[in-house]
Amino acid sequence: MAPFDCLTFLTDYGLEDGFVAACHGVAFQIAPNTRIIDITHLVPPGDIRRGAAVLAQTVRHLPPAVHVAVVDPGVGTARRAIAVAAGGAVFVGPDNGLLSWAVAEAGGATAAVSLTNRALWRETVTATFHGRDIFMPAAAHLVAGVPLAQAGEGLDPASLVTLPRPESRVGGSTAEAEVITVDRFGNAQLSVTGAEAARAGLVPGVPATLAWDGHERVVAFGSTFGEVAAGELIGYEDSAGYVAIAVNGGSAARRLGLRAGTRVTLTVTK
Amino acid sequence: MAPFDCLTFLTDYGLEDGFVAACHGVAFQIAPNTRIIDITHLVPPGDIRRGAAVLAQTVRHLPPAVHVAVVDPGVGTARRAIAVAAGGAVFVGPDNGLLSWAVAEAGGATAAVSLTNRALWRETVTATFHGRDIFMPAAAHLVAGVPLAQAGEGLDPASLVTLPRPESRVGGSTAEAEVITVDRFGNAQLSVTGAEAARAGLVPGVPATLAWDGHERVVAFGSTFGEVAAGELIGYEDSAGYVAIAVNGGSAARRLGLRAGTRVTLTVTK
Amino acid sequence: MAPFDCLTFLTDYGLEDGFVAACHGVAFQIAPNTRIIDITHLVPPGDIRRGAAVLAQTVRHLPPAVHVAVVDPGVGTARRAIAVAAGGAVFVGPDNGLLSWAVAEAGGATAAVSLTNRALWRETVTATFHGRDIFMPAAAHLVAGVPLAQAGEGLDPASLVTLPRPESRVGGSTAEAEVITVDRFGNAQLSVTGAEAARAGLVPGVPATLAWDGHERVVAFGSTFGEVAAGELIGYEDSAGYVAIAVNGGSAARRLGLRAGTRVTLTVTK
Repeated sequence: MAPFDCLTFLTDYGLEDGFVAACHGVAFQIAPNTRIIDITHLVPPGDIRRGAAVLAQTVRHLPPAVHVAVVDPGVGTARRAIAVAAGGAVFVGPDNGLLSWAVAEAGGATAAVSLTNRALWRETVTATFHGRDIFMPAAAHLVAGVPLAQAGEGLDPASLVTLPRPESRVGGSTAEAEVITVDRFGNAQLSVTGAEAARAGLVPGVPATLAWDGHERVVAFGSTFGEVAAGELIGYEDSAGYVAIAVNGGSAARRLGLRAGTRVTLTVTK
Repeated sequence: MAPFDCLTFLTDYGLEDGFVAACHGVAFQIAPNTRIIDITHLVPPGDIRRGAAVLAQTVRHLPPAVHVAVVDPGVGTARRAIAVAAGGAVFVGPDNGLLSWAVAEAGGATAAVSLTNRALWRETVTATFHGRDIFMPAAAHLVAGVPLAQAGEGLDPASLVTLPRPESRVGGSTAEAEVITVDRFGNAQLSVTGAEAARAGLVPGVPATLAWDGHERVVAFGSTFGEVAAGELIGYEDSAGYVAIAVNGGSAARRLGLRAGTRVTLTVTK
Repeated sequence: MAPFDCLTFLTDYGLEDGFVAACHGVAFQIAPNTRIIDITHLVPPGDIRRGAAVLAQTVRHLPPAVHVAVVDPGVGTARRAIAVAAGGAVFVGPDNGLLSWAVAEAGGATAAVSLTNRALWRETVTATFHGRDIFMPAAAHLVAGVPLAQAGEGLDPASLVTLPRPESRVGGSTAEAEVITVDRFGNAQLSVTGAEAARAGLVPGVPATLAWDGHERVVAFGSTFGEVAAGELIGYEDSAGYVAIAVNGGSAARRLGLRAGTRVTLTVTK
């Protein structure tokens, strides 16, 4: 594999310990000229779906890279450590579904290996920190040009664990969806794209009724926050292409009690 | 413009999503050899004054750079996207006052443009993420040597939005001021400089009376925290040159209920 | 001294202000080709023991570097500013014990200086931000190849302030220890190593009784979280080599009320 210039890194390690830095240090010693882009390290502990969503929505804006992602509640158990080639990039992490949405978004896996080549690991491997001891050193070697096939035994890409997609259904003048994720601003991203919603007539300028958990609210549909008054709700196609619900200058998630996994229905208001 | 070696980045994007990383990825693809210094991404959502204060107080310690700052509640509305040359640096962001204190601190704008040259934008521009789609790619091109004048239509610097300065008045043995900002340690920075306060006789060694919101407390004046006992209040000239109020080993803001915008009076204690 | 390729940085400055960035800017202007690895900036304000623990446990995974650490409640007072050579690295920070565990871990100090050479400081030095004005510029000069002896007056390494070690005692079938630190996941790290605990018969597969603050719980001993059911307690040797107490999928510290300094006893369950 031609070497990459860039390695990216997403975890649930947080920023208060030295875990992320230890991984940076390991990578630097193997591939000192590689730029490392930290995607986030604030995935809630063990929240694989949140990690998968952030990874999938961010990688499309990143350069060709080895993407290391570690949200790994099963660290040290029988779950496999994998590297997956997809769309000109390589994804490295635990085989628990974390990588699956990003791999699909990149066009699907073209090759995969189980990271069984101990020559690419650190000399001492602990049972609870594979990010530092296996994933990052293996990834740094891949960044530096080691061929994927040398990282371990080949795997059938069809055998990789995949996360179920958030559900959605669009028909008539209604879109049924799930909240995929809530961002820092409290915007709730739904599992229907702007294009899908448009098929149901949910387009800027048309008010819609949002129903969830027994509640109901009318929501203006537009394209950006400032189109409604401060404190008002707005539905819009977000920067990742999904329909999202926001409050101009506030948090829709907090206001409405939405969280990842909440099921909602959007209907064109008659 | 001669290319810069460094790009800096300040936003209210937070660190839990992939927003900052997407911007890093965009910059890297345009200007791969540029060092990016993240100033902060924890400006409270939409808090333009806080962003402006942190930016103005930090840039004086940064190398010549293109400084990208995005706290942009009006994203996607008619507010302009601008690049402003000042003091050997270029400031890029929304024309909502966010850049104004830093530009003034750098000596004032010598040139400004509206970022209207779409050739410097990303191909697809969303309505809600101009940091990724407009500001960062334009800034990366400027870092790489594209002349400011090619980034868009020239603007009269006098037409740029400026934030009102925090108020202050010094006279007799009294300084009236406003809390500019509160830092991580709970130190409350006031809108009078150490030099201004000295004109009112507020100098190390002289006790002062701090009055705010109907409360009053005597505060020792000194130069660093450890000059008073743990838990005691101290006024001092902070590392940005402003008078600040601290508690040795504690949070003055929490103890006294001070926050950005609180009006205070400091008087030499008779 | 041969120049280093890498500078690392640990503080209690937080990420919401521009303090860390100002230090990065200062370093970049002196040593523009040096990689900076941020260890953490979220040490609780003034918590020297926490900073010392994170530093000591992280540096062993970092490349040869100048390590700058600043948790400095006594900034601007008579405490010395020091640089200490140990194990091929140089540690820079206040002489308040913060560096002492890392220096010991690196094999002990081989040389030390008081950072008294003002030529390596910034021109203007404030009383409350020595990270920016003294530690970082001095460190950047050391990274760039300035010999340690030029940074200031030599010091007897034996005169450096050292932090008392957390207490521990192992004997019979019991280990007495202290919680060194709690990580993001709520895992409580104890001041006995896995090897020491093994001498008391505390090894994977053997249940142990954890006693603290008048409470008592039986804890399975294993090697990783997933060996017990979700929500169950487990004791294990952590990735730094110490015995730690975790809850699979939860926070042991919150569940049990453990915090740094809590004294515990682990006994092989009969």
